[in-house]
Amino acid sequence: MPSISNKGRLMPQSPIRKLVPYAEDAKKRGVKVYHLNIGQPDIKTPDVALKAVKNNNLDIVAYSRSEGSEEYRTKLSEYYKKNHINVSASDIIITTGGSEALLFTFGSIMDHGDEVIIPEPFYANYNGFSVASGVKVVPVISKIEDNFALPPIEDFEKLITPKTKAILICNPGNPTGYLYSEEEIKKLAKIVIKHNLFLIADEVYREFTYDGEKHHSIMGIEDLENHGIMIDSVSKRYSMCGARVGCVVSKNSEVINTVLKFAQARLSPPTYAQIASEAALETPQSYFDEVIEEYVERRNTLIKELQSIEGVKVAKPKGAFYCIAELPINDADDFSQWLLEKFSLNGETVMVAPAAGFYSTPGLGKNQVRIAYVLKKEDLLTSVNILRKALKQYKP
Amino acid sequence: MPSISNKGRLMPQSPIRKLVPYAEDAKKRGVKVYHLNIGQPDIKTPDVALKAVKNNNLDIVAYSRSEGSEEYRTKLSEYYKKNHINVSASDIIITTGGSEALLFTFGSIMDHGDEVIIPEPFYANYNGFSVASGVKVVPVISKIEDNFALPPIEDFEKLITPKTKAILICNPGNPTGYLYSEEEIKKLAKIVIKHNLFLIADEVYREFTYDGEKHHSIMGIEDLENHGIMIDSVSKRYSMCGARVGCVVSKNSEVINTVLKFAQARLSPPTYAQIASEAALETPQSYFDEVIEEYVERRNTLIKELQSIEGVKVAKPKGAFYCIAELPINDADDFSQWLLEKFSLNGETVMVAPAAGFYSTPGLGKNQVRIAYVLKKEDLLTSVNILRKALKQYKP
Repeated sequence: MPSISNKGRLMPQSPIRKLVPYAEDAKKRGVKVYHLNIGQPDIKTPDVALKAVKNNNLDIVAYSRSEGSEEYRTKLSEYYKKNHINVSASDIIITTGGSEALLFTFGSIMDHGDEVIIPEPFYANYNGFSVASGVKVVPVISKIEDNFALPPIEDFEKLITPKTKAILICNPGNPTGYLYSEEEIKKLAKIVIKHNLFLIADEVYREFTYDGEKHHSIMGIEDLENHGIMIDSVSKRYSMCGARVGCVVSKNSEVINTVLKFAQARLSPPTYAQIASEAALETPQSYFDEVIEEYVERRNTLIKELQSIEGVKVAKPKGAFYCIAELPINDADDFSQWLLEKFSLNGETVMVAPAAGFYSTPGLGKNQVRIAYVLKKEDLLTSVNILRKALKQYKP
Repeated sequence: MPSISNKGRLMPQSPIRKLVPYAEDAKKRGVKVYHLNIGQPDIKTPDVALKAVKNNNLDIVAYSRSEGSEEYRTKLSEYYKKNHINVSASDIIITTGGSEALLFTFGSIMDHGDEVIIPEPFYANYNGFSVASGVKVVPVISKIEDNFALPPIEDFEKLITPKTKAILICNPGNPTGYLYSEEEIKKLAKIVIKHNLFLIADEVYREFTYDGEKHHSIMGIEDLENHGIMIDSVSKRYSMCGARVGCVVSKNSEVINTVLKFAQARLSPPTYAQIASEAALETPQSYFDEVIEEYVERRNTLIKELQSIEGVKVAKPKGAFYCIAELPINDADDFSQWLLEKFSLNGETVMVAPAAGFYSTPGLGKNQVRIAYVLKKEDLLTSVNILRKALKQYKP
């Protein structure tokens, strides 16, 4: 029997998805599962996007342009301008979700064996994209005690080698909820310019900032034009994760032309989803105001309740809709599986994402879980209560 | 300024798409362009698929399962069974088009520097997927004089090295239109079993076979279970290229589990497109009968007309909707660009795909073009007439 690749063996199982079979078994046993494991919001997709697809008049569901339709990219550049990101349609390549945007970016700027420095914990699938691209993730440790702020810039500098091609951040952060300050972004800009690296910023949670804090895009930083690559997606902004539309944005035309070649090889991003995404740009501000208000309440509820559990440590998120919680256990993988396999409270249990998968340093995050606050307040209250009881009962 | 990757430099420009800017310039000058360059059929998408999307009642455009929805994969396995391909839902991973299916397959079975043997000319984007995956394409030359039949099996055997991981075929063939016989498939099966390789078959044109000839899937070959990987897509079958739904199918569970890890990293295939694809399975047989009848007429028209041009050599396709034509010129790249930039007949011109991009052996295919017969008969007649006049007028 022919064997799979080393790459295939190394490819990590998604910590967000690997417990899905256990959740399905639990459901088959009649147990209700609260999904805190995945960033799939329960927020309704804007009507304007849903209607555009229902009212579409396509006769032939044809390929779009590989870089996305001219109309969509032009309107998207206007959205960016409103967000103080001064780019034009030609600086944008539409991709199949932020996932493909990252894969194309990695392929365009890194070769087999090259290195990308990423503050950890980081979005778990960065590991998968790195393995797929033959690239090595070099982690810089950020700490729950510091709320997962940017590690000292010297920590980055120590790790730079001739193989280093880029620094990658997620801002606001998945899984940490940390929002980088303008000062922190400027420090990163300075170091990538000094060492002639790219700075990739995954800014898909741009709209989700709380407590009056502002998001600072890397695209707004002076002198970073040739170094900055922004990753974006409609998934979270408009609660349309299943559309699969994202983009790569850069003022570096060599990068954009290279990404375009990757885009041409796969022909085009999905056509229906581009209809939804273009229409979603007309979403009224009131939609976002309500959504942000809702998330602030959820976050406040979740953090307060988690902090009331003995032995639980949690960083307060300033953006996105995740938090990392440290639990009074040794093995969050085992605990998370046990929650689905063995535990229930009044016929209900919770699914969380073990945090080890969000680290690349072995051993880190073993006692942490990522919790996505994508459920309504009363479900979050129930979920934390389930966690509280479960932690008491859990005997590893 | 930080530099792009070698991979990015090596990534070929799509021969199907690289002339698009010239076509757009021609259109801006008021010239009508007949698109024979791309396999984007003018056939209407089945009503049942279009209506399913128009009548969808999603409130939240959520992620689907990474491997595609259980319902869709189950129905799809029934479609395969009807086509004498005996697979179940668990043998199928739904992907974002056949493109992603190939990328996941390459990643799952090949590492940096591994080799895949492909009869050339081959679908140009196999080059792009190979560069993206760090894999080397080793071509076996098939010839226009033989109608692009399978090269002698000894030619394959000579090229097998310890780095060889797979043989990849497209059946029916893009860009050749060649349909492999059962005997040819069995020869390939024997050699991959003997040398413990994978046999990847891109079978996206399964329905498009003519003159009463039958398609033979690799999935129907005995003893090939652990070696066979089928690539499929809804793009051509239902004329919905823009949906971006395809799949990887294999009875080798290690391959499927590995492909699933790649699929999990990118979260899910597009949700709207899966609605269309699932509904498309209800397309009545009469749709296909009409489509095939239409393509046979188009093919007959195109081939007859091309053969009537002095100096033009063309292989008669038995499937798919492409043919390779050898023209009495030296540089099809230059000629194809000239057609768009300098030539027009009554305000009209044609866009074809220079065939060199469908070869990986340097110098081959320089005097050939790929023509997609995806336009209606009268447009094909006009297009070939334009070609005829252009060949007379062209002075390189």
